[in-house]
Amino acid sequence: MKALWLENNKIELREIPQPQKPNEVLVKICKAGICSTDLELVKGYYPYTGVIGHEFVGEVISSPEGLGVRAGDRVVGEINAVCNQCEQCVSGRPTHCENRTVLGIMNRDGTFAEFTQLPLANLHKVPTSVSDEMAVFTEPLAAALEIQEQINIQPGDRVLLVGAGRLGQLIAQTLALTGCDLRVVARHKRQRELLTARGIRIIDEADVQKWRWDVVVEATGSPGGFALARQAIRPRGTLVLKSTYKGEMSVDFSSIVVDEVNIVGSRCGPFEPALRLMESKQVDPTVLIDDQFSLGEAVRAFERAAQAGTLKVLIQP
Amino acid sequence: MKALWLENNKIELREIPQPQKPNEVLVKICKAGICSTDLELVKGYYPYTGVIGHEFVGEVISSPEGLGVRAGDRVVGEINAVCNQCEQCVSGRPTHCENRTVLGIMNRDGTFAEFTQLPLANLHKVPTSVSDEMAVFTEPLAAALEIQEQINIQPGDRVLLVGAGRLGQLIAQTLALTGCDLRVVARHKRQRELLTARGIRIIDEADVQKWRWDVVVEATGSPGGFALARQAIRPRGTLVLKSTYKGEMSVDFSSIVVDEVNIVGSRCGPFEPALRLMESKQVDPTVLIDDQFSLGEAVRAFERAAQAGTLKVLIQP
Repeated sequence: MKALWLENNKIELREIPQPQKPNEVLVKICKAGICSTDLELVKGYYPYTGVIGHEFVGEVISSPEGLGVRAGDRVVGEINAVCNQCEQCVSGRPTHCENRTVLGIMNRDGTFAEFTQLPLANLHKVPTSVSDEMAVFTEPLAAALEIQEQINIQPGDRVLLVGAGRLGQLIAQTLALTGCDLRVVARHKRQRELLTARGIRIIDEADVQKWRWDVVVEATGSPGGFALARQAIRPRGTLVLKSTYKGEMSVDFSSIVVDEVNIVGSRCGPFEPALRLMESKQVDPTVLIDDQFSLGEAVRAFERAAQAGTLKVLIQP
Repeated sequence: MKALWLENNKIELREIPQPQKPNEVLVKICKAGICSTDLELVKGYYPYTGVIGHEFVGEVISSPEGLGVRAGDRVVGEINAVCNQCEQCVSGRPTHCENRTVLGIMNRDGTFAEFTQLPLANLHKVPTSVSDEMAVFTEPLAAALEIQEQINIQPGDRVLLVGAGRLGQLIAQTLALTGCDLRVVARHKRQRELLTARGIRIIDEADVQKWRWDVVVEATGSPGGFALARQAIRPRGTLVLKSTYKGEMSVDFSSIVVDEVNIVGSRCGPFEPALRLMESKQVDPTVLIDDQFSLGEAVRAFERAAQAGTLKVLIQP
């Protein structure tokens, strides 16, 4: 089959064997999305060799022993394939499995390909009313919802979101549903337009009051974004980190102690609520789609995704 | 009156006027304790000029309009004098008052002196059965209890405390009361002996399992202590920072995001529970006392407190 292969910071289309683990579900990819992590993998921030891509919607081809799903079912898939035996798994933290492989990120071929495989337990059926263009956002939308799995956003909270890119837009849409007093720092014109169109209020970086926000979500992954978020948080407020950072970052921890700030790292989230919110049309990720490419044009799709201000680029085999 | 004056990284005994704000309670100092913050102030980590010292037990001399306390009452005092009007105060976070002065630390003369003053609201009467030697520990014991004000320590939690100095010993004693599975990394022999005498288990640094502890409390204020604490915490675990750090610290925040770690800065705590735990003899801070000096010997007391492994040194006028 055709697949986008990453090796030594270079992506190229390759012809590779179709995946064939006997104990996993074989899925034909319908659409797959390019995310910031994919771009970082290509830059070499994390070591990975193999088929990249982890956001997808697909169609079941076959399931081991015919269990759980049927050929033709439309599915999305959680990206961590876990052992169910380590301390993290048995303690109810399977996304932190110590033996995990991660779709298109760690020791597991991903989704910019004609087919992919995942354990049955990772798959979620997509409701009929949720289109492929929508369902392909399930994974990042779930990641946005992880914030509310971790901390209690109260309707009376003043919440600042720093960053309105691929993930930031989805975080903005989900946070807005809590009724909180949300403002978003958005650098690009189109990011601001998308937010404004949904009635989500933007705020200029220069207008962000220091030391005033109950909750701040940092979604830029840049030291500048972190610094702005840190300044904005009130004493005993919560700073949620939704992006990874290149290398180490130098931070004044004394002020974090003096202000009794709470910093929460946040990663993968729950798929079923993400699907529910799309089915009920309470969030609409499709407005983020900038472009769609065939798998044959995948390298070009990555170039498009890497342009400043680009939101979502989709690839379909 | 006689007082220990800090100016330009130097402490010296001076004769200064007795404090006389008409709207504050005048207190005669019975005993005052030297804390790590005092040693750091002398090193110049924070800018401060004035009488230093903030841990004390004293005797009321006079109260404005004779309210609240009587002459002769034995009292301890919270160190943050607040405005009751700023956003932090009216939101129930008075220790974070934006206009606060802090006893012996920020714009308010402290307790290594014959007398000090504080607002009436800062004072707590000391139960008769709590000795001066015990009561002088109320402030740091309250700081230890702040951990449990901020996070829920469950009896089934595996808790690691890194550091068993002045504050660490008090944290160890209070955490042990929760029934949690507590281990303490203690560098000095006497620190280990004090813990062992109370049935608190110590652990060698080399034996600290990585990625396994539900809660880790960092009480060393050193980058090495932070690194050990960070390694020990399990995914989605809570890392409590109980010490300040000199300058900035370089940290890998990506791993904090990937492991979804929760970092909590922690500072001043509640006085009444501290007094209750000493009254009921459930904690005993007096075992920390290494030495006592008269106010006239205060400079020598500081030299003693600065020696490696020294726990508590008291000063009495």
